[in-house]
Amino acid sequence: MAGNSRDPGRSVTARALSVLTAFDIDHVRLTLTAIARRAGIPLATAHRLVRELELWGALERDEDGRYSIGLRLWEIGLLSPVNSRLREAALPHMQDLCQHTHDNVHLAVRVGLDVVYVEKLTTPRAIPIFSRSGGRLPLHSTGVGKVLLAHAPAGVLHECCERGLTRYTAYTITEPGRLGRELQTVRNRGFAQANEEMMLGSCSVAVPVHGTDGAVIAALGVVAHSARADVGRLVKALLPASEAIRQRLVERERGELDLLSR
Amino acid sequence: MAGNSRDPGRSVTARALSVLTAFDIDHVRLTLTAIARRAGIPLATAHRLVRELELWGALERDEDGRYSIGLRLWEIGLLSPVNSRLREAALPHMQDLCQHTHDNVHLAVRVGLDVVYVEKLTTPRAIPIFSRSGGRLPLHSTGVGKVLLAHAPAGVLHECCERGLTRYTAYTITEPGRLGRELQTVRNRGFAQANEEMMLGSCSVAVPVHGTDGAVIAALGVVAHSARADVGRLVKALLPASEAIRQRLVERERGELDLLSR
Repeated sequence: MAGNSRDPGRSVTARALSVLTAFDIDHVRLTLTAIARRAGIPLATAHRLVRELELWGALERDEDGRYSIGLRLWEIGLLSPVNSRLREAALPHMQDLCQHTHDNVHLAVRVGLDVVYVEKLTTPRAIPIFSRSGGRLPLHSTGVGKVLLAHAPAGVLHECCERGLTRYTAYTITEPGRLGRELQTVRNRGFAQANEEMMLGSCSVAVPVHGTDGAVIAALGVVAHSARADVGRLVKALLPASEAIRQRLVERERGELDLLSR
Repeated sequence: MAGNSRDPGRSVTARALSVLTAFDIDHVRLTLTAIARRAGIPLATAHRLVRELELWGALERDEDGRYSIGLRLWEIGLLSPVNSRLREAALPHMQDLCQHTHDNVHLAVRVGLDVVYVEKLTTPRAIPIFSRSGGRLPLHSTGVGKVLLAHAPAGVLHECCERGLTRYTAYTITEPGRLGRELQTVRNRGFAQANEEMMLGSCSVAVPVHGTDGAVIAALGVVAHSARADVGRLVKALLPASEAIRQRLVERERGELDLLSR
């Protein structure tokens, strides 16, 4: 590879992956030209990579000639532990919560300085909110975010404050000292609340979900109309659901260990 | 690239993708050695590709040194239309169905000769079954499969029969002529039934889900205890749910066209 100082394998894989990152929730269908532009690669390279990815099933082409993420990539993504373990264990308990509260129910994990929504269930009576499974929101302004931030290593809070605490409404906590005290309250009380801090009219309540080793691995939350939310009642519904999820994770781990020891 | 007659980009991308296909539902965590073996690539190549995929977030490494599919790949997979359009439109209606029937509720699409389960909701009262979102089953032995097969191009039935109609129980339809007549009934009646054809004790009932252009794009089904399933009642619950999903798909498409024309 004279004249190319980079590892050729590395650059090809990186470019193939850059094709995938051209897609996001506002760009789920893209033309070849748009893929090349958004991925920052020459059109000819994009053409070749897209064809390979399409052959494999990572991309799909519709009748208009636009591409979207392929079903095979979706299938493989579902093997991620966040889906195959966490979401699968939580889903029936989230359905129960949703059925009893008639509100939006979220399961979320922390990735860096973001909340990533693993699943969202909703009902026609729930307040319309813009979260979605696979979507991201900041840590400081939502109920699930506060739970995850309260149980993150201390450096994470520091980094969030460094990046700046974006104000979404007049009620968003944007002062680092106040956020630190709020997180202490979350740890002391065992649940978090966010009152119109992300969106006016909505109130979120969330509790930690513990993994098999006792560490906080996720947050389970409900987002309700702020006018009619009964925080005490929501916490009473959330805590046993979170505990049931932990128990299911423990049972599954035991099942897997049993399989391994056979 | 003297001495290598293959397109180097192609082979690298293909090998990177082969690393991902080393994972499946029975192998969600793999050592590097297992990845190399299952992907059929040398250990040194696997090492380099795995490192790149890990850096990008397509793979994650746990404390034991085993790898799993990464959260970033899961996030990107969720952009697939099967999730971002179909599942998102269907989920609230599936929740309703699950709440009213207390049975397993499936949303499925056809991929080649397989049923691919897009989502599965269940309740503690439902009969335990082994389907899962992202999982596959054959077309001839399940309710959703029969719906999808009944509305597939004629060649698909032929291919299924060529491959052989696997017998799962004494009630599985394994005779091509009988299957053809069964599919005609499915088209005539507007729903499919599978009585203990996949698993003894369970009965599935399914209806087509039409897309915005009227074509059958998915199947919506319920799997219940065969002893207590009331087929008429299930069909009556399934048909309006399927129609509500179609309406939501139409509304979304209109919303997107409005956005484009602004």
